[in-house]
Amino acid sequence: MEKIITVLPGDGIGPEVVASAVKVLQVIGKRFNHTFHLNYAAIGGAAIDQYNNPLPEETIAMCEASDAILLGAVGGPKWDNNPPALRPEKGLLKIRKHFDLFANLRPVKAFPSLLASSPLKREVAENVDLMIVRELTGGLYFGEPRKKTDAGAIDTCVYSREEIERIVENAFELARLRRGKLCSVDKANVLDTSRLWREIVEEKKKQYPDVETEHNLVDSVAMKLITNPGHYDVIVTENLFGDILSDEASVITGSLGVLPSASIRGDNFGLYEPVHGSAPEIAGQGVANPAATILSVAMMLQYSFGLKEEAAEIERAVAAVFEDGYYTADLAQEHTRTLTTVEWTEKVLNE
Amino acid sequence: MEKIITVLPGDGIGPEVVASAVKVLQVIGKRFNHTFHLNYAAIGGAAIDQYNNPLPEETIAMCEASDAILLGAVGGPKWDNNPPALRPEKGLLKIRKHFDLFANLRPVKAFPSLLASSPLKREVAENVDLMIVRELTGGLYFGEPRKKTDAGAIDTCVYSREEIERIVENAFELARLRRGKLCSVDKANVLDTSRLWREIVEEKKKQYPDVETEHNLVDSVAMKLITNPGHYDVIVTENLFGDILSDEASVITGSLGVLPSASIRGDNFGLYEPVHGSAPEIAGQGVANPAATILSVAMMLQYSFGLKEEAAEIERAVAAVFEDGYYTADLAQEHTRTLTTVEWTEKVLNE
Ligand SMILES: CC(C)[C@H](C(=O)O)[C@@H](O)C(=O)O
Ligand SMILES: CC(C)[C@H](C(=O)O)[C@@H](O)C(=O)O
Repeated sequence: MEKIITVLPGDGIGPEVVASAVKVLQVIGKRFNHTFHLNYAAIGGAAIDQYNNPLPEETIAMCEASDAILLGAVGGPKWDNNPPALRPEKGLLKIRKHFDLFANLRPVKAFPSLLASSPLKREVAENVDLMIVRELTGGLYFGEPRKKTDAGAIDTCVYSREEIERIVENAFELARLRRGKLCSVDKANVLDTSRLWREIVEEKKKQYPDVETEHNLVDSVAMKLITNPGHYDVIVTENLFGDILSDEASVITGSLGVLPSASIRGDNFGLYEPVHGSAPEIAGQGVANPAATILSVAMMLQYSFGLKEEAAEIERAVAAVFEDGYYTADLAQEHTRTLTTVEWTEKVLNE
Repeated sequence: MEKIITVLPGDGIGPEVVASAVKVLQVIGKRFNHTFHLNYAAIGGAAIDQYNNPLPEETIAMCEASDAILLGAVGGPKWDNNPPALRPEKGLLKIRKHFDLFANLRPVKAFPSLLASSPLKREVAENVDLMIVRELTGGLYFGEPRKKTDAGAIDTCVYSREEIERIVENAFELARLRRGKLCSVDKANVLDTSRLWREIVEEKKKQYPDVETEHNLVDSVAMKLITNPGHYDVIVTENLFGDILSDEASVITGSLGVLPSASIRGDNFGLYEPVHGSAPEIAGQGVANPAATILSVAMMLQYSFGLKEEAAEIERAVAAVFEDGYYTADLAQEHTRTLTTVEWTEKVLNE
């Protein structure tokens, strides 16, 4: 197989973790006889510095000519006081919208060897294996009108039927490939967009009689994600609820630093990035945890290229290194060995 | 002191827990020489059954003639398929809006004797003592236009400067009476309403140099509430974020069944209710936990009537009964004694 990948290292620890993930990608390519062509471009703060634009035309063009995108992370204090249009995260929002990356997939799975780092009791967190499917290109993030004056401000939450249908279908398909359970999250007791959302889930579920479907309110899920996270298989929800719930869910298993994500559209094109941020405070020290980005590459192999065996191989290698007690500084505990980013990546490559 | 209180028992376990709280109120009144006149009215499902209206005019009139409102809980499967205007929670939304109850206060404090019920590790949950101040009458809950057709739907998030100013001032004042720390929560990297919110907090904080103020994004707070809840003193946020975060926070200490809330406006008028719902599955069995409603009465004494000593007395009595190992069924553990609603209330009255 031959694929073109655009690599967007971004800011902070982005370049370091991306470098590790690229090494893993190359080793997998060699081993399984695939050729991955890598093209590098700028996004976020780095792109603001170089092009005065968080998502330059050059970057868009390069992404358009590729089969998938690997992203590090964006942002940092340097750009925190910029006007909204010149902030690093604007690059993220624009790339999602431009490429219609409407489905954000965020798996949260417990690594037994990391549970000591979880704020939750072991018995609550240990069996967690859930996937949040967040709608990524609609809702309050992009709706018009939006306006701020000195006297007041307004944002608009809009969803079309098609926007809801495609993400809901996506979630049903994923549930079918997993444990066959879907929880749709809304605020249908208050919001009109949520009432439409719930209606559409009710319609679609007739096509998926094999999937056990439930509706739950966002406030109630915010509780149950902590009291009984093992209850969930696939959770599907709109953009803003997904933003909040997926970050909340990311702390359950103590493995925030190892969580990958995919943002995909209807065909196989997608953007893959770690859930964690750019962590400017530790950038350049060689101590960042590359696991989340390496696992994001595994998601790319699986979702964009259909390479399931290769993806599983990476996941196995990462789990094995944790089992052996090797961690980067963020996860260090007593009786474990703390490695640098490069050393830890070597362990994965050896596996 | 002489006060008139409208009592709205509502649905499910509402009438049972309200009956307990009323007993406590009467004992406190006797002991401290206050007269509390109680008038009962209907809200929620009970009001739909009786008046075909979740918030009848009769109820509004009675509340208008009183100094404070005590509410049980509303809702239940019986009304779940009613049209939106005839659903129990519509009564709640209407009473908030009608009486301009813009500040929802939700304290979350660890009772050491309940920590075994927390999903969080003891060391994470044990020092938690925070207060969420949620804006309750604006934002996406009430903004116009709101509309649903078959092809799409829309909701509008609106805030005027005045609406933000008054809730932010309220939160600063509360922070000053507590540990002097305020965390304002928004999504200023995406929303215009959040940008205005952040600006106003920046303006107001000049008048409160003694309060240590920080801004944080809602997704980030959703994480930190679980990884480091002890960090927070007062949290202030808009309606929808407050709905999600306050429910999330309610599970931290293992004491969801004992959390009170107040919804107040600029003068001393307010509505007091437990955070938990109407729990129809256990209604009428005499096993409900009345602690949250009893503690809501304590909030009423403090915030609406300025009776600090009386409020403290109730809080002390509730804590003492827990310390003695007496629990209702929801909190039962090994080595504790399980009491009915009425028995448990008697213990509190004896204290
Ligand atoms: C940076 C920000 C705009 C973004 C979002 O809110 O979508 C981030 O929180 C995320 O979840 O990817
Ligand atoms: C019942 C519902 C409308 C309400 C809300 O969302 O405000 C409830 O969740 C609450 O928090 O009091």
